[in-house]
Amino acid sequence: MTPYCELGREELLELKKELTQKYEDAKGKGLKLDMSRGKPSTDQLDMTMPMMDIFSSHCDMKDDQGVDTRNYGCLEGIYSARKLLGDMLGVDPEHVIVFGTASLNVMYDSISRAYTHGIMGSTPWCRLEKVKFLCPAPGYDRHFSITEHFGIEMINIPMTMEGPDMDLVEEYVKDPAVKGIWCVPMYTNPMGITYSEEVCRRMADLSPAAEDFRVYWDNAYCVHHLYEDKQDTLPEILGMCKANGKEDMVLEFASTSKISFAGAGISCLAASKANLDWVKKSMTIQIISHDKINQLRHVRYFKNLDGIKEQMRKHANIMRPKFELVLETLERELGGLGIGTWTKPLGGYFISFDSMEGCAKAIYNKCKEAGVTLTTVGATYPYKKDPHDTNIRIAPSYPTLEELKITAELFTLCVKLASVEKLLETK
Amino acid sequence: MTPYCELGREELLELKKELTQKYEDAKGKGLKLDMSRGKPSTDQLDMTMPMMDIFSSHCDMKDDQGVDTRNYGCLEGIYSARKLLGDMLGVDPEHVIVFGTASLNVMYDSISRAYTHGIMGSTPWCRLEKVKFLCPAPGYDRHFSITEHFGIEMINIPMTMEGPDMDLVEEYVKDPAVKGIWCVPMYTNPMGITYSEEVCRRMADLSPAAEDFRVYWDNAYCVHHLYEDKQDTLPEILGMCKANGKEDMVLEFASTSKISFAGAGISCLAASKANLDWVKKSMTIQIISHDKINQLRHVRYFKNLDGIKEQMRKHANIMRPKFELVLETLERELGGLGIGTWTKPLGGYFISFDSMEGCAKAIYNKCKEAGVTLTTVGATYPYKKDPHDTNIRIAPSYPTLEELKITAELFTLCVKLASVEKLLETK
Repeated sequence: MTPYCELGREELLELKKELTQKYEDAKGKGLKLDMSRGKPSTDQLDMTMPMMDIFSSHCDMKDDQGVDTRNYGCLEGIYSARKLLGDMLGVDPEHVIVFGTASLNVMYDSISRAYTHGIMGSTPWCRLEKVKFLCPAPGYDRHFSITEHFGIEMINIPMTMEGPDMDLVEEYVKDPAVKGIWCVPMYTNPMGITYSEEVCRRMADLSPAAEDFRVYWDNAYCVHHLYEDKQDTLPEILGMCKANGKEDMVLEFASTSKISFAGAGISCLAASKANLDWVKKSMTIQIISHDKINQLRHVRYFKNLDGIKEQMRKHANIMRPKFELVLETLERELGGLGIGTWTKPLGGYFISFDSMEGCAKAIYNKCKEAGVTLTTVGATYPYKKDPHDTNIRIAPSYPTLEELKITAELFTLCVKLASVEKLLETK
Repeated sequence: MTPYCELGREELLELKKELTQKYEDAKGKGLKLDMSRGKPSTDQLDMTMPMMDIFSSHCDMKDDQGVDTRNYGCLEGIYSARKLLGDMLGVDPEHVIVFGTASLNVMYDSISRAYTHGIMGSTPWCRLEKVKFLCPAPGYDRHFSITEHFGIEMINIPMTMEGPDMDLVEEYVKDPAVKGIWCVPMYTNPMGITYSEEVCRRMADLSPAAEDFRVYWDNAYCVHHLYEDKQDTLPEILGMCKANGKEDMVLEFASTSKISFAGAGISCLAASKANLDWVKKSMTIQIISHDKINQLRHVRYFKNLDGIKEQMRKHANIMRPKFELVLETLERELGGLGIGTWTKPLGGYFISFDSMEGCAKAIYNKCKEAGVTLTTVGATYPYKKDPHDTNIRIAPSYPTLEELKITAELFTLCVKLASVEKLLETK
């Protein structure tokens, strides 16, 4: 393969003609495919249906501590659910509160609570002139939407293949206006990489100026491996913080949305006792108790961490071929052309693609015009602004393999075409 | 019966001796009963268990519009659930958003959102010097806890047997700092009365100075009748407001917590399109979608409003004897004594008891000491301060009939004893 940048103007024009022809053919197919969100596929949801057999009208609905899950009470969630999710995170159940279906909602509430009531006695953020957040990017668009919604100034922190640039993070936290950092530490959204031990070690030993600075540790993909024999590992952050005498510095979030059912699972917050006590002060005003029937349903279905791991092996069997198909297509179609780089995740829901500078929007638009919706370009950055217009999040989970084959090929075609057009601007 | 106030000092002392003996006997029984909260009883929960048979692993989990309830999406809730709850409230489904399990959480979020982001473009309450709320009292303690949590000044509005004192309400809303009023309009907590048509008419025609004033209409007991032939009726408030060109003035809340399972039902907000659009602006940041599986479970179980009514008849068959037992005991033991008055609700979860002035706390403590926990005295008033120390909320739903008999008798004994002691202070 000759890298595109080594091609002359005439060769590029010839290539453009050829690619445009292929693109017009593709457009003619009337595709309508969506690769924009990390949604589980129908196959994955079907695979989880036995969970619907867990309860019948003759079941005992009490948990193993005698709590009737059908009635009010048990604000922190039933103990067995706290243990199940605690085991998943490597955290003691005493440090876990189980909420409703959505960890996103728990994160939103954490920011909202800090805004209205502060954190463990600190000044509510709504009373401060300026609140800032560190946003490793590319990152999860919904994190950035929450901080933007509360008028919090977001600071881009470049991501390396090891995690966020910790030199920068350590520098920025000296500013007392910096109140938090958003992290997806494992199989991160959208890169699919996992923070290195060194990054975690430095994260757990930050010395922020703000006493209400927290690491918002969204461990959404903690058991979402694609392979049995090749798996990333992540240190347990609460323990690391505690060892440094900084156990209050981290709030960890997770859910079973991509383990059981998307938007109908159970979610949790894991944190120090002092943090949980503070959360409960608002929580007791907010709600009587979350859905304990669904908590018990999950406990009875999964039984324990091994049950979750077994479930994730089945998910992996569905996800793995999709990731491999996309990665093979990218390599076959784009390898050696010098017009894009991409991550090769061992888990999670995304592949992160970086085009040549200034091409991502064009690629998005070309895909869109041909009937394939990608995640909006820029969404992976604060304020939806990708400074170099390069990043595209590929979400291979939802389409079928057949659809994905078409989509991946169309995507690489659009990358080529947009790159040629870009190069022609200056040649 | 001779009213206690007509008894002389000697008679009162004699009576006290006799009552004290009975009370000591009661204490010796080692009771441990809880009448503090409006919790459904185990019988009621058992009766609803067929809901657990609705789904099995072979079910089609799509709603009637083709939405896969197992996956993300459908922020407003599935249409059939919006219709089910809309029908229950007499509101068009277009004006209903279905949330998770707890209407309390929806109310909390409504206040929190107004505090952080304002309402439909108005100044966020956190930026205002002073925000006030009208609190018809006695009322629902958790409403008052929410406003207190946000530092909102609460103004007591006396309740009449027709609803809140509307003369006062109409006067107070002229103050632009007054941003809302808490209402439980039907079988109100704790009185069990229903707002009269006249009260509703005046409520729907308020002319508040604040553009962001809202009537927080917590229609928690809208279908919770005790009798087939004697039922309160409540006008539909959204329609009434709309007829006055004031459709944005009301936010109506409801849930199935006391229809299906407590804390594991589905909840909703009904409001004008402009209000719902405003809510959705935050909601789309907050969550991807609520538990649609549980929404579909409710739709398939109840089918329609008739299904809900049928369910409520079964609840009534369990609740009615409990209310009647308490009311008979009150009448038998306290009738004519002039030491207490109480409401005789046709629905809901509570009976409101008013003792002689300054006796409620003493009654509560005596019951507690004998092993019966009542709702904390004062809880039915803002800041937990009952200005006259008279109101006690009786929650007959949770205990069995046998337990209730003991409890009701102990309660009346404590009322008598506390009243005698009170009278002796001045005789």
